[in-house]
Amino acid sequence: MAAAVAADGGAALAAWRALLGEDRVVTEAATLDRYAASTSAWSTRPLAVLRPRDTEEVAAVARIAGSERVPLYPISAGRNWGYGDACAYRDGHAIVDLSGMNRILEADATLAYVVIEPGVTQKQLSDYLREHDLPLWMDCTGAGPDTSLMGNILERGFGHSPYGNRFQSVAGMEVVLADGEVVHTGFGHFPASVNRRVYQYGVGPYVDGLFTQSNLGIVTSLGLWLMPKTAALNHFLCMVDEHADIGPVIDALRPLRLDGTLRSILHIGNDLRVISGGTTYPRELAGDTVPLADAVRRQLRAAAGVGAWTVSGALYGSSGQVALARRALRKALAATGARVQFLDERKLDLAAAAARLLGNSAPGRRLAAKVALGRSLFEMNRGIPNGRFLAGAYWRRRGGLPPGFPAGANPALDNCGMLWVSPVLPMRGADLLRVHALAEPIFRTHGFDLFVTFSMINERALGGVLTVAYDKEDAAEAARALVCYRQLFATMMEAGYIPYRVGLQSMAALDSGTDSYWRMVGRIKAALDPAGIIAPGRYAQNKEG
Amino acid sequence: MAAAVAADGGAALAAWRALLGEDRVVTEAATLDRYAASTSAWSTRPLAVLRPRDTEEVAAVARIAGSERVPLYPISAGRNWGYGDACAYRDGHAIVDLSGMNRILEADATLAYVVIEPGVTQKQLSDYLREHDLPLWMDCTGAGPDTSLMGNILERGFGHSPYGNRFQSVAGMEVVLADGEVVHTGFGHFPASVNRRVYQYGVGPYVDGLFTQSNLGIVTSLGLWLMPKTAALNHFLCMVDEHADIGPVIDALRPLRLDGTLRSILHIGNDLRVISGGTTYPRELAGDTVPLADAVRRQLRAAAGVGAWTVSGALYGSSGQVALARRALRKALAATGARVQFLDERKLDLAAAAARLLGNSAPGRRLAAKVALGRSLFEMNRGIPNGRFLAGAYWRRRGGLPPGFPAGANPALDNCGMLWVSPVLPMRGADLLRVHALAEPIFRTHGFDLFVTFSMINERALGGVLTVAYDKEDAAEAARALVCYRQLFATMMEAGYIPYRVGLQSMAALDSGTDSYWRMVGRIKAALDPAGIIAPGRYAQNKEG
Repeated sequence: MAAAVAADGGAALAAWRALLGEDRVVTEAATLDRYAASTSAWSTRPLAVLRPRDTEEVAAVARIAGSERVPLYPISAGRNWGYGDACAYRDGHAIVDLSGMNRILEADATLAYVVIEPGVTQKQLSDYLREHDLPLWMDCTGAGPDTSLMGNILERGFGHSPYGNRFQSVAGMEVVLADGEVVHTGFGHFPASVNRRVYQYGVGPYVDGLFTQSNLGIVTSLGLWLMPKTAALNHFLCMVDEHADIGPVIDALRPLRLDGTLRSILHIGNDLRVISGGTTYPRELAGDTVPLADAVRRQLRAAAGVGAWTVSGALYGSSGQVALARRALRKALAATGARVQFLDERKLDLAAAAARLLGNSAPGRRLAAKVALGRSLFEMNRGIPNGRFLAGAYWRRRGGLPPGFPAGANPALDNCGMLWVSPVLPMRGADLLRVHALAEPIFRTHGFDLFVTFSMINERALGGVLTVAYDKEDAAEAARALVCYRQLFATMMEAGYIPYRVGLQSMAALDSGTDSYWRMVGRIKAALDPAGIIAPGRYAQNKEG
Repeated sequence: MAAAVAADGGAALAAWRALLGEDRVVTEAATLDRYAASTSAWSTRPLAVLRPRDTEEVAAVARIAGSERVPLYPISAGRNWGYGDACAYRDGHAIVDLSGMNRILEADATLAYVVIEPGVTQKQLSDYLREHDLPLWMDCTGAGPDTSLMGNILERGFGHSPYGNRFQSVAGMEVVLADGEVVHTGFGHFPASVNRRVYQYGVGPYVDGLFTQSNLGIVTSLGLWLMPKTAALNHFLCMVDEHADIGPVIDALRPLRLDGTLRSILHIGNDLRVISGGTTYPRELAGDTVPLADAVRRQLRAAAGVGAWTVSGALYGSSGQVALARRALRKALAATGARVQFLDERKLDLAAAAARLLGNSAPGRRLAAKVALGRSLFEMNRGIPNGRFLAGAYWRRRGGLPPGFPAGANPALDNCGMLWVSPVLPMRGADLLRVHALAEPIFRTHGFDLFVTFSMINERALGGVLTVAYDKEDAAEAARALVCYRQLFATMMEAGYIPYRVGLQSMAALDSGTDSYWRMVGRIKAALDPAGIIAPGRYAQNKEG
């Protein structure tokens, strides 16, 4: 069956206006431009932006889309930066903007969960937990306060805490199918159930995974498990000076991640990834030469006090458990030559006092900046989101960081150029070095600096995020960025380091055409959405039996 | 579309014989009787038993079934006791017995996983790990050495260790669909992938859950994460004398399970659940009166040295971590009045020596029995399965435990009567007491003793297993057992304690007919298996759009 194609969409718009009112069906050019903004080369312009306020309205929106054959593209906060932003796969789809559905429907301190709608942002839940004095911490990503929790979870994103493998914390979804049918997963479809938020699978096939990285339905709420606050929290940093030295560090850390001594997601960034958190491309030192000359890079490293690689992570537990973990970490890393630093709040307070004593001198400012970074890390590890970790997106942006950064930071609207490739690696030093060795010459050839973070996203895998950061106002550089991205993507696929997530520009590259997994997914798509109403082109393609 | 119905199946049998050879298509009456054996009132007799040896044969078997319209019923080891055993939903289906597909396809000590086929038993993997000196422990259930790991995992069973929430340890499945198409999930469908066993979700919709508690495909292999051996292991027991005292114990333990101090699955059994592990129904004391009189029950408790409830669990980690957990447990339970005992191997050795000194006296025999039980628990917590925990199934069996028990124990073939109801509860003392209060009068009314275990199957839920154990040779008692079971099941459903898993006899009771979850699952079933070839009646029913 052919997928839905928007004609002029006039009848659909009229029906949506009758349903939602004029002000929640937006077709004004300036608004559509804003939704078309993208950090990537892939940008599409919607037919309209629809703003339903509850599940019934979402269902009615879908039914109209089905009868009028206009594709929908649901977004939460629309901040899927680097992976397609708020853009549909093609022009002319109707964006279903769920950011107005932002209720926290339930919060349970005893069983440690909340139930949230798509529009609930990191900041909103974080504030809620503190205002209501709940003994719970939210898992944070570095994508800033205004991003949607659900949007990231449904993309199977990851954060920083022991609950950082976010999909594992989902218990019970409400989903609107293409025909407007509302499905509750887990035990939620049994009206009497008292156990829907404490157990994920329900009885019968466990379907929640179908609605992640998918276009099979529109998720309108979900149960989210949160971690109980712990008595102690330490942050640790571990640095190696030389590139090759990170291999043995991975192999030394893996057993501690596997055995549960390290319960949270560690992030391992190269020098530029760390440096770019505090500054943009140093045109004053480097002019317009990219990639940075080695000498400049070493100068930046020295100024920032970082090595070739920095491991950053947190230890959670009772003070006794944290002390044991500290000791185990020190012992494991002793033979690697890595420098390990532990940071607790007492140390931060002391450093802050020292910075005040040093005043407005250069060392004083450097120390104050480090204290501020440390505080942000601590806060993030305790569920308080911070926009400063978005700074990397602005690396090549003309004019650097916008005034007031990080408040209101939005890389898409701020015209940042950024493309992400996210290969998954076995958690072994040799794999990290291999992926780096494959990527580095590609970046160099196309004239880009390689920014990369490898995160210990579970007990056995590293999730790499390789950033192609480019100057969007330079058309030649933007074109080079896309070529660099495509070569990088193809190289990782060929080497078997398949990505955990892709941007719109790579959806089509995932399906060889003879792949039985995608054929099966396509058959499921055809069964649940035969006309291809929900987000056509996004991951699943309709395929008839 | 109508589901497949076996006519006489002659053409299918001929085609399967051509494919597999005469000896792997069994229609001999004695064999069919054996596959029809069941611990429950629900028993069906198959058309034939097919024994494919590899994935290609499974696919060819499915294609023949499709063209000849004979339903298939795949089993692993066929030991789904209490939930339907090896029986299909209806008579006349062809059992696809996968027990001959029992290869361990891969084992990786560094990344801590194996890849197994459906026939791999608990004993087989356990032996393999020790023979190859791999530093890994398997999660065990109490269902004995000869049960299939995959069979239990696909039913979303749970074990005892930190990896006891077994489905969470699955990374990558190979699945045969009804039309014979072979699908690899996770990253496995990308031929080059080097990351398929270290990350579960792949890219695109995460589908593995679809093949659990399901009839959507036949799983022919899966990746299974295993836990690294830990330096220390303690077993602990915690008892309360009076029934109501278990409530506060649950509430005291929950924070420790939530914060990760208790990483494994704790089991909380009532007195009879513990007593029935060592003996069958005491006809010599109680005659034929069921339920047991309170006085007899107290006498049995005293003889076994157990209270009204016993909590059993294990502490894993470094010796420091285990010591901290011991202290935290003692502290948490101090106010509850529960008696806590920790058991390490040194204590077991001392007790064994004492038992030897006491010799064949009554106290000596009692102590020796306790030592033997302790050793079995330790072994199970380290991945060595033991059949002794099956003894409960034999409670009402005439003639008691069979000679040589537990070697070769098979409750279905040994004519045990057993039905299980498995409600999921929020992990709160009040819920445990409520479920018990709902169940107890139902058992009493129908003349049965209530055996129950509540297991901390994740950080927020208790999985209850309520056993109706009955004398299968007594037709009146067997009939009463079914009535008791049905009333119990309906009561739990009404109270909202929906079960995590059901036997064949309750499949139809899960779908009210207007439930949008089951309708969606039915549409997926219709898309993937339009003729209803795979296990019709099992969880998903075909429903056209």
